Amino acid sequence: MITRLSGNPIIGIEDVKPSRDDYEVVCAFNPAAVRYGHETILLLRIAERPKAKNDNERIAPIFDLESGTLRHIRVTTDDPDLEDSGDPRGFRYRGGNYLTSISHLRIARSNDGEHFSIEDRPALFPREPYETYGLEDPRITPIGGDYYIAYKAVSETGICTALAKTRDFKDFERLGVIFCPENLDVALFPEKIADTYWALTRPVPGFIGRRGIWLAASPDLLHWGRHQPLILPRPGLFDGAKTGASCIPIRTDEGWLEIYHGADDDDTYCLGFALLHPEDPRRVLGRCQAPLMTPEAAYETQGFYPNVIFACGAVVDDNGTITIYYGAADTVTAASRTSIDTLLNALV
Amino acid sequence: MITRLSGNPIIGIEDVKPSRDDYEVVCAFNPAAVRYGHETILLLRIAERPKAKNDNERIAPIFDLESGTLRHIRVTTDDPDLEDSGDPRGFRYRGGNYLTSISHLRIARSNDGEHFSIEDRPALFPREPYETYGLEDPRITPIGGDYYIAYKAVSETGICTALAKTRDFKDFERLGVIFCPENLDVALFPEKIADTYWALTRPVPGFIGRRGIWLAASPDLLHWGRHQPLILPRPGLFDGAKTGASCIPIRTDEGWLEIYHGADDDDTYCLGFALLHPEDPRRVLGRCQAPLMTPEAAYETQGFYPNVIFACGAVVDDNGTITIYYGAADTVTAASRTSIDTLLNALV
Repeated sequence: MITRLSGNPIIGIEDVKPSRDDYEVVCAFNPAAVRYGHETILLLRIAERPKAKNDNERIAPIFDLESGTLRHIRVTTDDPDLEDSGDPRGFRYRGGNYLTSISHLRIARSNDGEHFSIEDRPALFPREPYETYGLEDPRITPIGGDYYIAYKAVSETGICTALAKTRDFKDFERLGVIFCPENLDVALFPEKIADTYWALTRPVPGFIGRRGIWLAASPDLLHWGRHQPLILPRPGLFDGAKTGASCIPIRTDEGWLEIYHGADDDDTYCLGFALLHPEDPRRVLGRCQAPLMTPEAAYETQGFYPNVIFACGAVVDDNGTITIYYGAADTVTAASRTSIDTLLNALV
Repeated sequence: MITRLSGNPIIGIEDVKPSRDDYEVVCAFNPAAVRYGHETILLLRIAERPKAKNDNERIAPIFDLESGTLRHIRVTTDDPDLEDSGDPRGFRYRGGNYLTSISHLRIARSNDGEHFSIEDRPALFPREPYETYGLEDPRITPIGGDYYIAYKAVSETGICTALAKTRDFKDFERLGVIFCPENLDVALFPEKIADTYWALTRPVPGFIGRRGIWLAASPDLLHWGRHQPLILPRPGLFDGAKTGASCIPIRTDEGWLEIYHGADDDDTYCLGFALLHPEDPRRVLGRCQAPLMTPEAAYETQGFYPNVIFACGAVVDDNGTITIYYGAADTVTAASRTSIDTLLNALV
């Protein structure tokens, strides 16, 4: 049903130049993917941290708006105000949560979709008040000659989704926050349906409700409403604890094919898929029972955060072959291949 | 600075007829308030529960979409799957949170703003998929001859904000979900500013961020974007843990006066106030240092959930007198009076 590329992982942390000499890259993962002319373009999430670190300290790199550079929150491990859960991704200090790395977005280009050349400089680096903790997990949707990038924008005020656009992958225009905290894993549909733009979103309910995929509608891609739950977790299955959109919905003759991610109570992230009505994305026509991909390869089961397959993009060729690009174990980038027919047949 | 009405609480649970004979009213509180012709109209939140209840059970009333009536989740206190934190408002059972009452919205009318006659029947009762756990904490904003009601819509999928409108407080039209989970305490501004509708919102950040007032913009009141943090908690002050919009922003010569609520780490809810720029609500011009009201009266410190002053509406007369209507201890409705000048002078 799915084949991993033999060259996996196709991008590792050693392939990426840090944004500054005193930093090291810790993760190169969760790329958006899009066909651009003859190229496949990935927009990678690059997580970095300062190289210089004492064993007895935790460091949070944060973009400082005033100076326009990164500054560091340093906490020694014997500080009584430090709450360290052991999660390598962050720590809690004096009532606030901090990240141990800061992410930006970086372009990689390929002519065969398997071998990528990674740019030396960031494409989108923290700059706005809503990005001071980083830019993460982008999805690219081509709409009318523009390429819209929906990305997780993290700051001390919360985890939002912001929008940017480009025509050439050289100049990028920021369009602001489109979903307020906490909302992530946003995938815009590539065309209007019933004269409306649509997006898959992933609100994070608090007191009541599960973390699952919702749908929203917009007249202009900037303002969103008509929110409704769509593909929610199914307790007992591979996606029993969380679901979130992964790839941009793929137009097929049968409807919109969405490759999403689902996590179970052990926080193992798999890929699943669902089919939405071609003229009305509010209607789910089918949904996989078993996962499309489960973490099995060493690069998926071992890393910064193990047992994670997390896709943010796919490229479909003229034959209906789907190449899925995904972050593996929150560390490296891998790819796998399936096809539209394979997935549609599995829903029958 | 503020005077409580001598008739407080002005509405108690004994004043309200339950929506059905086998139910009892447990709270009549958190009303929206608006001037309508010569009347003051309150839109009360009425929380009800079944009268028949054994000592050894917890009951969650839920609106059943198929039958169009209320059904009950009953859990005995010795059920090992019950997680009872002691909070009278809800309990946790088999991975889901449930409410021990279900709320609808009810109209009360007055000619003097102090003595109210409460309608026998609900104005807005659960009906939609996003309302199966109830409708709560409304705010009414008059815009161009219509009265827009933003309310907390609660269901098993989460706590959203939905919108309805009316022209006559007899017929109500639902306009759907405008903010996805978890978002509450939404107050629409009563006019366009810079050709844009604005709303105060209260997202609930998860991993990072505090629960505070944000601002959003809209072309049509239905789709929202341009989210940004506005009036966030101030650790150490009365609003150190949470802030949320209470009343609809009041137009003054100096700017938009917002009476909001703030809670501290002990979950004591007070009222505060802030001033926003008249032509640009993204700019906070001033903010109180001390609370405008602190729970002190017996009906504020004792009740279903003690030490809560929670306003959802105010009425301003031609002299600039502000009558604030508020829920006290999550149980009854009370009112207090201040004035625009008093609040503006306190910000100097």
